[in-house]
Amino acid sequence: SARFGLAYNESNAESTRVEQRMRINITGIATTDAGVKFEARFRLESNEDSSNAIAGRGPGAAGFAVSYEGLRVDVGNVSDVIDSGDVVDYYGYGIGLTALVEHNTPFYGNGLPIGGFGAGDQDTTTVKARYTASGFTVAASYSETRAQAAVTTTDSAGDTTVTTAAVAATDEFQIGAGYDFNGTTVGAAYGDDDAAGEFWVATVSGSFGQFGYSVIVGDADAFADVAVGASMNYEISSATSIQALVADGANDADATYGVGFKHSLGGGVTLKGGVASDNGNTLADLGVALSF
Amino acid sequence: SARFGLAYNESNAESTRVEQRMRINITGIATTDAGVKFEARFRLESNEDSSNAIAGRGPGAAGFAVSYEGLRVDVGNVSDVIDSGDVVDYYGYGIGLTALVEHNTPFYGNGLPIGGFGAGDQDTTTVKARYTASGFTVAASYSETRAQAAVTTTDSAGDTTVTTAAVAATDEFQIGAGYDFNGTTVGAAYGDDDAAGEFWVATVSGSFGQFGYSVIVGDADAFADVAVGASMNYEISSATSIQALVADGANDADATYGVGFKHSLGGGVTLKGGVASDNGNTLADLGVALSF
Amino acid sequence: SARFGLAYNESNAESTRVEQRMRINITGIATTDAGVKFEARFRLESNEDSSNAIAGRGPGAAGFAVSYEGLRVDVGNVSDVIDSGDVVDYYGYGIGLTALVEHNTPFYGNGLPIGGFGAGDQDTTTVKARYTASGFTVAASYSETRAQAAVTTTDSAGDTTVTTAAVAATDEFQIGAGYDFNGTTVGAAYGDDDAAGEFWVATVSGSFGQFGYSVIVGDADAFADVAVGASMNYEISSATSIQALVADGANDADATYGVGFKHSLGGGVTLKGGVASDNGNTLADLGVALSF
Repeated sequence: SARFGLAYNESNAESTRVEQRMRINITGIATTDAGVKFEARFRLESNEDSSNAIAGRGPGAAGFAVSYEGLRVDVGNVSDVIDSGDVVDYYGYGIGLTALVEHNTPFYGNGLPIGGFGAGDQDTTTVKARYTASGFTVAASYSETRAQAAVTTTDSAGDTTVTTAAVAATDEFQIGAGYDFNGTTVGAAYGDDDAAGEFWVATVSGSFGQFGYSVIVGDADAFADVAVGASMNYEISSATSIQALVADGANDADATYGVGFKHSLGGGVTLKGGVASDNGNTLADLGVALSF
Repeated sequence: SARFGLAYNESNAESTRVEQRMRINITGIATTDAGVKFEARFRLESNEDSSNAIAGRGPGAAGFAVSYEGLRVDVGNVSDVIDSGDVVDYYGYGIGLTALVEHNTPFYGNGLPIGGFGAGDQDTTTVKARYTASGFTVAASYSETRAQAAVTTTDSAGDTTVTTAAVAATDEFQIGAGYDFNGTTVGAAYGDDDAAGEFWVATVSGSFGQFGYSVIVGDADAFADVAVGASMNYEISSATSIQALVADGANDADATYGVGFKHSLGGGVTLKGGVASDNGNTLADLGVALSF
Repeated sequence: SARFGLAYNESNAESTRVEQRMRINITGIATTDAGVKFEARFRLESNEDSSNAIAGRGPGAAGFAVSYEGLRVDVGNVSDVIDSGDVVDYYGYGIGLTALVEHNTPFYGNGLPIGGFGAGDQDTTTVKARYTASGFTVAASYSETRAQAAVTTTDSAGDTTVTTAAVAATDEFQIGAGYDFNGTTVGAAYGDDDAAGEFWVATVSGSFGQFGYSVIVGDADAFADVAVGASMNYEISSATSIQALVADGANDADATYGVGFKHSLGGGVTLKGGVASDNGNTLADLGVALSF
């Protein structure tokens, strides 16, 4: 997939940048005679950064999956329970080309270890299991970060420089359950991390005709307040939709909100844009997303 | 694509090397219902270097393109007007397996910012637009390099080392026009760069039966003299051609010249070789180029 | 291809790790009208390391091949005579998911330059030629490592740090011959390296019905004793086989031995596991290997 366009971030020294990202996942699949499906994948990616330099990276660490009927196990550089969307709708309807804000935006910057697959290397190995039957889903994940000593160099005068910081050992787990009934999905997940403490997330999402909604509530040891968010999507036509979002809480001083649109041009090309305020910082973007 | 063989460079400590290069472009394409074509691509590459170590790199920064009828816009890690060949034939007929010399060889080493897509990262984002109608082409490009602070490390004694040099902000634009009539193409382009100053290039190219030619002339603030070059191609048979080239000027003390051949073995395999003198330095190569 | 599972190494600080590897070779092929086949390839890879961090690398240095009837020439980041298996069975039947031990295990750690293609960069360019006719194979390889100066940085106090170690120039060649008759293959190869001195390897391998065997013997200037090894494979059924291995000598204090199994689940998925003792160090693994 790829996307490019313009993005504005009030807080950057150069507030406008040319947004440009390309991602390729390389996935290998093998299925046993008994129907157990094995997958392995890694990602190649190119991205702009805030200063407009553009850089490729990857292949990243690989993620693996085994699935059979209602059961799926993921191993390696893979999503944990909350990031995966197995039982909760952690991200909701994002705003704009680059998901300027999502309904979980207040969760960020608070040290929560929630995360998933990417094009980078990983200090953490995650194992996640999910089981689905009759609309009911349960999932559990365990993520282990092993301690690694700092890498240092020593110069001709005997002075040392840390070139790679030490990594502390941490363990984290998440468990959750979700249920799907008549187009409404409810779910909750709880996690506990050696370093970041406890946290939980609950979501309700669904749709009525052209109107879709998702609501999130969560708390964590690291939060001053409960975090709440809601996002909605309205299908104006078969090609065009608008999104709106509001979120607040955790350690944010100001509310987060935004509006955006998506318009399909067919053939996997979608025009997207939005404006948002992220805890008082103004963001905007406009561009095209390519699906290939 | 790939190429391998032997290459000789008089000025290297080890003058002969095993030339070995492999390139893979990964391109994603999506076309809207209205026929607008979007593309994104990045490159993986492996190359020998002058000391015979061989190293892969990439994925590099991505380049994007939007095209519709006579209009094409490129964004990101992409060619500028002169490099793209949209309006001028900047490279002409190269000599040998590795393009030992090209008719623009005197342009190099003078700080001109002309360049294009590759497997590396980029500090510069380029936007180029080209419009073609009835054999007439106009093109303009703008390349912005944003300032980036140096990256430094500090050791245990408080001494600092610059690990990534600072990048200065520069802006550059190029404009050009070309016209194609009865197999003859003429074109000119002008550019202005904050750091390198002004420069221009004009070319005439065409063919008479089996004989093809290309002539280039250009000047720049950075040049002591006008740079001129001419290259030709002669198709001896459907499979075999010879090339010859001469160029001089800019800040070169000596003329650059060379002769080479290409012989197709079918199936995308071409035997190529050449000898050349680049501003007094002798070069030669021989090998196969693979198209895949 | 990919593999994942659990691996145990008694000598690691964290003795058990989640084994996880994915490899993708990208190969370009072009065949001339006369039937000469040219290939170029490089590799992308992700791997865990002993501390459980998982990291991708590549594309590595490229390898090239030209083949025509019984002749094949490899150039670049490619196997030498012994690693290639052209004339000797250097690895035999490996034990377990990760080839915990192979019948040449005592050869390792003694500075022998035997090696092949991988996802990394290379300081060495190898050229290998192989000719096969009527079951008889001869092969020769030459590997040149060019001298490279150390890369150093200088800090604000004038102290220097070596960031990339110097590489010493070395030359190495290997020659060998093998013969295949009635299902039995015998072969021998000899090599000489500027730095590591002389070394030779001889193998006999074959099969009787479901039973396959391979025996290796070799010596080197760097070895205190002759190294010997034997490995066997027994096909219990069309899907299941067991392997056993013993090896000793070179500079090892203790014998190396192991037993393992492979069980095909169909569709390119194979369950593999094994236990081994490598010169006194206990190893074990269990997991699945995916072929794609």
